[in-house]
Amino acid sequence: MTVELVKHDASDADVLFAARVSTGAATIAAATPDGLSDRDAGLINYLMRDKHGSPFEHTSMTFRVEAPIFVVREFFRHRVGFSYNEESGRYKELEPVFYVPADGRPLRQVGKPGAYTFELGTYKQFMAVSGDIRRVSQEAYSTYKRLLDLEVAREVARMVLPVNIYSSFYVTCNARSLMHFLSLRTISDAARFPSHPQQEIAMVADQMEDIFSLLMPRTWEAYQANGRVAP
Amino acid sequence: MTVELVKHDASDADVLFAARVSTGAATIAAATPDGLSDRDAGLINYLMRDKHGSPFEHTSMTFRVEAPIFVVREFFRHRVGFSYNEESGRYKELEPVFYVPADGRPLRQVGKPGAYTFELGTYKQFMAVSGDIRRVSQEAYSTYKRLLDLEVAREVARMVLPVNIYSSFYVTCNARSLMHFLSLRTISDAARFPSHPQQEIAMVADQMEDIFSLLMPRTWEAYQANGRVAP
Amino acid sequence: MTVELVKHDASDADVLFAARVSTGAATIAAATPDGLSDRDAGLINYLMRDKHGSPFEHTSMTFRVEAPIFVVREFFRHRVGFSYNEESGRYKELEPVFYVPADGRPLRQVGKPGAYTFELGTYKQFMAVSGDIRRVSQEAYSTYKRLLDLEVAREVARMVLPVNIYSSFYVTCNARSLMHFLSLRTISDAARFPSHPQQEIAMVADQMEDIFSLLMPRTWEAYQANGRVAP
Amino acid sequence: MTVELVKHDASDADVLFAARVSTGAATIAAATPDGLSDRDAGLINYLMRDKHGSPFEHTSMTFRVEAPIFVVREFFRHRVGFSYNEESGRYKELEPVFYVPADGRPLRQVGKPGAYTFELGTYKQFMAVSGDIRRVSQEAYSTYKRLLDLEVAREVARMVLPVNIYSSFYVTCNARSLMHFLSLRTISDAARFPSHPQQEIAMVADQMEDIFSLLMPRTWEAYQANGRVAP
Repeated sequence: MTVELVKHDASDADVLFAARVSTGAATIAAATPDGLSDRDAGLINYLMRDKHGSPFEHTSMTFRVEAPIFVVREFFRHRVGFSYNEESGRYKELEPVFYVPADGRPLRQVGKPGAYTFELGTYKQFMAVSGDIRRVSQEAYSTYKRLLDLEVAREVARMVLPVNIYSSFYVTCNARSLMHFLSLRTISDAARFPSHPQQEIAMVADQMEDIFSLLMPRTWEAYQANGRVAP
Repeated sequence: MTVELVKHDASDADVLFAARVSTGAATIAAATPDGLSDRDAGLINYLMRDKHGSPFEHTSMTFRVEAPIFVVREFFRHRVGFSYNEESGRYKELEPVFYVPADGRPLRQVGKPGAYTFELGTYKQFMAVSGDIRRVSQEAYSTYKRLLDLEVAREVARMVLPVNIYSSFYVTCNARSLMHFLSLRTISDAARFPSHPQQEIAMVADQMEDIFSLLMPRTWEAYQANGRVAP
Repeated sequence: MTVELVKHDASDADVLFAARVSTGAATIAAATPDGLSDRDAGLINYLMRDKHGSPFEHTSMTFRVEAPIFVVREFFRHRVGFSYNEESGRYKELEPVFYVPADGRPLRQVGKPGAYTFELGTYKQFMAVSGDIRRVSQEAYSTYKRLLDLEVAREVARMVLPVNIYSSFYVTCNARSLMHFLSLRTISDAARFPSHPQQEIAMVADQMEDIFSLLMPRTWEAYQANGRVAP
Repeated sequence: MTVELVKHDASDADVLFAARVSTGAATIAAATPDGLSDRDAGLINYLMRDKHGSPFEHTSMTFRVEAPIFVVREFFRHRVGFSYNEESGRYKELEPVFYVPADGRPLRQVGKPGAYTFELGTYKQFMAVSGDIRRVSQEAYSTYKRLLDLEVAREVARMVLPVNIYSSFYVTCNARSLMHFLSLRTISDAARFPSHPQQEIAMVADQMEDIFSLLMPRTWEAYQANGRVAP
């Protein structure tokens, strides 16, 4: 899973100027994080706590993500405040890059839907998983290539490819929509609003959160302090 | 591809009452299509032509769709005015139902991206496509089952499944968002705004359009008459 | 403030069928509230608690609302999952109906932004408020009429009308977007996510909540039980 | 009407990199407009013509707008791809700045709804309009101040203010949502998709379009060349 920040126009100061237009005190705060006063940080915390979400929207972050299709599918469920462009299996030949769970990826699912826990698998399970996934991926890809060699259209040939093949996409979001995504796609056992995403999308979300915490440190702190619930 | 109308609250009359609140003439028109006067049909046509889109939104249609994952992926790119719930490969064991192109599905892609045309394939191509897709699907599915038998978590085992496996989902939209979808996902060679969707999603879109034309015949006629551009 | 349910396609059963497509147990539950089993109610509560919001979206409610412009302005800030059509001051002559606070409407604002409390006003304040609002409304409206009599365009003449003049609009939303609206526009002193909307929009929101609680009683109960936070 | 660009992260090159991820040719184009090749401009034109809208969304522009409330109300009808924060009449005392039509603003509305034309008014009409609007605005504002002096809450006192009082707001949008706005809020007599917005919101939209054409000249040219229809 690769997450790269392509460009951004997002800082804690953006939240402040938007919030302060309400009260007319719309002085633009200093642009560096260090420039934020305690009063500024307090305002951000208040907005987060009382769910005043709109001031967080005047920000923009564009990421390039590489992830297997089963992760992309979960990601693209996020509709509001998200813009996407993805590599197309109709327009280009896909590369033979496939996701195979690493050693240490829990393989056993225990419990009921909505309350699953995961446990490490046995050695036998691990060998089966990594061997089978590799084998099926290779066979599928060589079939794909054979069909392309026969001049079958890419959009038809790709039908044999498994959902663990990597795709790549650009995604643009704002701080509010990103926090909403993070609240659902990072792993949390909080009593209030626990979230149990599949581990692989959490690997993407964690990287996005790291970048977000650097771009907008006061906003991220307030998000943490208020139970990781998006405003 | 299966499309079934699950429920709806959508008629041409809904467009009229919403449009007429603007002018205060908000008499609810008769609920049956036959009940619409020429003046009513004229108003719907005017709204479509001048891109007054909001009156078309006070309608709701819920469909159940069965389609392969590569179609679902294109469908879920539609974000605005669309609500989704899909069968989950994390929560249930997927059925061994796979899409294989029927005889007659054009297999050769000719031309450049954005201006492809398709041609029927040769007999050799057809045999390769249908044979290979069947074989890869079966192998992938038997591997999937073997991993489940070993008590590997469903969310891990499913990684081997190809994108032509069927999924099913509920989708709810309104007449405006549906027309936007149709304008992009049905095949059109119009000079203005041609659209070249992959044939398989057009098979879904065509069925949705048939249902839409029965539920809201005047709206559909106006959509047709105005170049199949969503208002 | 008047709120009228125009039409709807919304029941607790709609939440269930959408949620159960995930697990494949998509039996449509009985359509009447009484038909819901404890297990059904439990599923709705689980979805609310863990913020699985999408199953609540396959529902549709259309309201007709009459409210003064300053309330309409707050209402129309809700963008996602809301469709609007409003009476137009460009297309029709507006009626001389104005909002005047009733006896008992708190008139004094105490405290700081974000933490205001309100207190009943003095008799002198009440007399000033109701007298002045009436007087300004009447003068504005007679000026409006005078300009219309001079054949000035409606869109120009209306510029003199105050924000307490009544407007009317149709709004269509789903259960999820409605709960989001209610969480911000009804009055709450909850420790977590308190909300302090202006009293007049709360008068609209309360009526919408009453209707919602009748249409989808189990969903409303789960919303209550989970801190009135939208999923 | 004042429109000021507060910040932006929007260039023609942003459209190109997003579009080219589809085909894998995602080389980031040079960032200056002059750096775009004919081939780049051709791609932008193709995207516009065939309504491939998503590549235009990876851009962000934040404006500060000052406009009377009746214009703000029309502006805020735009929901998708728009974020807002507005000056609040609940939290601050509003300034006595009111919109009065200038000499030359057409005052007579001729024709039917949906097909109005406007004509210059007579001298008598102009004097009535500007005199009456000034007088009502002043009376309303002095009543507002009197109520505030009596310590009536701002959210109550403001009810007497007319819709021509100025407000200010921040709005953030992307190139796609902006083009959609422009297609409806600038004046056009095009045979296909004519638009007849009120002149005052067109005064705002024209300023936004000027800024947009400087930030993204190739995109703006393609928008012009394709009938001013948003992709």
